Amino acid sequence: MDVTRSSSSTPDRGSIAPVSLASVERFDHDVDVVVVGFGCAGAAAALEAATAGADVVVLERLSAPGGSSAQSGGEIYLGGGTPVQKACGFEDSADDMYAYLHAALGPHVDERKLRLYCDESVQHFEWLRQHGISFQESMYDAPTWVPPTTDGLMWLGENAWPYDTLARPAPRGHRPPTGDYGGWLLMEKLVAAVGAAGGRTHPDSRATALVVDEASRVVGVAARQFGQEVCYRARKGVILTTGGFVDNEEMLGAHAPVLLGHGKVSDGGDDGSGIRMACALGAATRRMSAVQAALIAPPSLVYRGMLVNALGQRFINEDGYPGVYSQRALLHEPAPWWVIIDQEGFEAVAVAEAPGLQPQHVAETAAELGEELGLPPGALQNTVTIYNRHAAEGEDPYFHKNAKWLRELEGPLAAVDPRILGVSAATKTGIAGFTLGGLHTTVDGAVLHVSGQPIPGLYAAGRATSGIHGEGYVSGTSLGDGTFFGRRAGRAAALPASR
Amino acid sequence: MDVTRSSSSTPDRGSIAPVSLASVERFDHDVDVVVVGFGCAGAAAALEAATAGADVVVLERLSAPGGSSAQSGGEIYLGGGTPVQKACGFEDSADDMYAYLHAALGPHVDERKLRLYCDESVQHFEWLRQHGISFQESMYDAPTWVPPTTDGLMWLGENAWPYDTLARPAPRGHRPPTGDYGGWLLMEKLVAAVGAAGGRTHPDSRATALVVDEASRVVGVAARQFGQEVCYRARKGVILTTGGFVDNEEMLGAHAPVLLGHGKVSDGGDDGSGIRMACALGAATRRMSAVQAALIAPPSLVYRGMLVNALGQRFINEDGYPGVYSQRALLHEPAPWWVIIDQEGFEAVAVAEAPGLQPQHVAETAAELGEELGLPPGALQNTVTIYNRHAAEGEDPYFHKNAKWLRELEGPLAAVDPRILGVSAATKTGIAGFTLGGLHTTVDGAVLHVSGQPIPGLYAAGRATSGIHGEGYVSGTSLGDGTFFGRRAGRAAALPASR
Repeated sequence: MDVTRSSSSTPDRGSIAPVSLASVERFDHDVDVVVVGFGCAGAAAALEAATAGADVVVLERLSAPGGSSAQSGGEIYLGGGTPVQKACGFEDSADDMYAYLHAALGPHVDERKLRLYCDESVQHFEWLRQHGISFQESMYDAPTWVPPTTDGLMWLGENAWPYDTLARPAPRGHRPPTGDYGGWLLMEKLVAAVGAAGGRTHPDSRATALVVDEASRVVGVAARQFGQEVCYRARKGVILTTGGFVDNEEMLGAHAPVLLGHGKVSDGGDDGSGIRMACALGAATRRMSAVQAALIAPPSLVYRGMLVNALGQRFINEDGYPGVYSQRALLHEPAPWWVIIDQEGFEAVAVAEAPGLQPQHVAETAAELGEELGLPPGALQNTVTIYNRHAAEGEDPYFHKNAKWLRELEGPLAAVDPRILGVSAATKTGIAGFTLGGLHTTVDGAVLHVSGQPIPGLYAAGRATSGIHGEGYVSGTSLGDGTFFGRRAGRAAALPASR
Repeated sequence: MDVTRSSSSTPDRGSIAPVSLASVERFDHDVDVVVVGFGCAGAAAALEAATAGADVVVLERLSAPGGSSAQSGGEIYLGGGTPVQKACGFEDSADDMYAYLHAALGPHVDERKLRLYCDESVQHFEWLRQHGISFQESMYDAPTWVPPTTDGLMWLGENAWPYDTLARPAPRGHRPPTGDYGGWLLMEKLVAAVGAAGGRTHPDSRATALVVDEASRVVGVAARQFGQEVCYRARKGVILTTGGFVDNEEMLGAHAPVLLGHGKVSDGGDDGSGIRMACALGAATRRMSAVQAALIAPPSLVYRGMLVNALGQRFINEDGYPGVYSQRALLHEPAPWWVIIDQEGFEAVAVAEAPGLQPQHVAETAAELGEELGLPPGALQNTVTIYNRHAAEGEDPYFHKNAKWLRELEGPLAAVDPRILGVSAATKTGIAGFTLGGLHTTVDGAVLHVSGQPIPGLYAAGRATSGIHGEGYVSGTSLGDGTFFGRRAGRAAALPASR
């Protein structure tokens, strides 16, 4: 125990309350920049700060770096004309990228952050490549969560209605060549780059409080290491990259209760600690209710069939990015939701993509199936009749599903819960997600006080902050804005201490 | 200028940052309890604190008390068997009241606050009556925003599906006998009662910051009065009853962007200042994205017709409380929305309730009307056909609209924008609302720090806090929880300073 605090100046509010500089007897470490959390945002921040010449330490609560980023699919949302896009035959521009994300991540995106993110995306691609992250110059061409191939490029909803009418469609999902979830490879490369640039990692180190001087400038971090309290002086700044708060039930209840009880897309450490440490200093938050949510079904089941709500009504084109229909269902449509599909469609999925999949309900006609599902009398029959009439004409005037996936559904029909792959595991609800809201930051990662002014010495990036998102989400934008704004925070923090 | 602050201890973060006790040279006023804001919550808090023997001052930023409460409809949500309910022939219980509000204000209500609110509702009714607020023992029996009568009791959605299946329906909207918006009468009585109990009002006084001692206890308030800074010592506590933040564009953008650009249900002073002053001390917030929203149309237009979304789909029973269908539309259904109504229905409204009302579109058939509205081909025709078939049978299997309002719609048909009364005024969007999220408080009004512990000396109530609401809203619950929890905060703050 190297730090003692004078008890009179430390209110009893748990370890989250700031520690006054006057109460710190001795710092155990003295560095330029302390980064708290070693996911993708922390890695990008540490790498840029170290490259700029700063002495950097990254604190990671687990015994190895990676965070939730290392467990993710690994897609990074990049565009505007990257070499991979060009090699695959797609033209793109920063304006088209902006127009798509403005709609898909909206309403109410942070336009300033988003504009910068799009304008500098090709440059960000080059930075990633320079640090060893490569993308195969080939394309996977069907809606899915994570392609089972090493293709470097995928659609993330850009070619689905209504987005295809708002911007020239170009695929922008860039993925490492693992053939599966690729977040670990991204993090492996970034962690190596941080080390090569001279950044140090202190594992098993959980930050517990920020240290502030008498002018309320953040000048350090208190942390727990193997049961000991250790104190870091940060001469230039502290960067919080602690992730979101999906693992903190109390914060979920307060801000994003829609995710309570559902699966968590995280490494178990998204406990909101960085957000809380900063709020204890008066930091402002933004969009704390925004979430990503996924219904865990084979996407091909959904786009080959028809997705309806508890009233038997369709509500979206089934061939969009799975995250988009998932979010629409969970946040806006009466549950339960059902995928209605015929034998031909179901078997195509059950053979090729999800062997052993069983439908929950089967009936000879839509009327009978609707009755079995407890839908209003005639509702499903009516929806199927209209769908089939339009499918026969090759058009979907309601939601403009691509004609490629429009096909008359001919009895017998099955109803499948669109959470089926999650539901089948006993402990899961079939829905999993994470939080998008967090600290309110400038485009350079400075954390804003509720007064609107930056808190001197304090920076943040990644899911500890509110990033480029409004109320929508598509994959790749968390690794995307985490690395992009993590870099900016790292560069800003490495500047001479002037703020 | 009676207060000076040593500049070294006051970070430059605007006036919202807390003032340290050490930097206050002299207090201009020395009282037990300072209440900030004189709406219904402030009045209830001041009244109870003064009744308990505390020396109380209420700071009001305008030149007269009343706040947004005085401009409201005046309905107070009370039940569990009040004398007015009994006189009108309704049985009720705290459990039925709880079951209804749990559903109508949900999902995700604060169950502890709601339970207390229901269990002690009859007692709260008596307290209001004791302080001069009377309710006529008669009932207004049709869905509406504000009845044009002096009847003391009205439905607030309790008798509409699905709520009528979840709890025994009883009307719980209690209203002062003004024959119109009655909030002013409620406030007139409460303000008089505060004065009679010895509470003092300091008008034209805008609180700017909280004063905290070295143990982070709130011990006073700094305020602006006619351009001068004045400082109040609060020996026992400060109670923030400053209202929500619908008048603060920056906070709306950060937390509840869905209300940006729409009308504001407020007195113009719901600027979130109390929330921000407390957050500058590390206070926790809750449900900052929750809002009330109203589509400004004659409710009878809606329940006599059929409400559809941008796809021509019905999405709710039209005979519920107008706030409920308004919120469903704004938050969850693709816009624009339309009321589809026939000539008989339209004329009944235009003659009796909204003389001069004009439909935006008229056509001989549903198919033609749908085409004119740009709905998907056949969509409106299909919805009207199904609605009429069910109306002929006297049943609505989709949304269980009461048979009393079910009637076949026979051409010619009109389409009316359900925001019509607001839209017709040039500067309005036809939607108006306010915010429901705010400070996280205990049932006794103690403001919680992000650490989970109460901030000593700091209390809050009303729309500056997150109250009994989840994501839903019905009228009467803001005057209701503001007065109910305002009272509890006032009593708690008046206790000897022990926290």
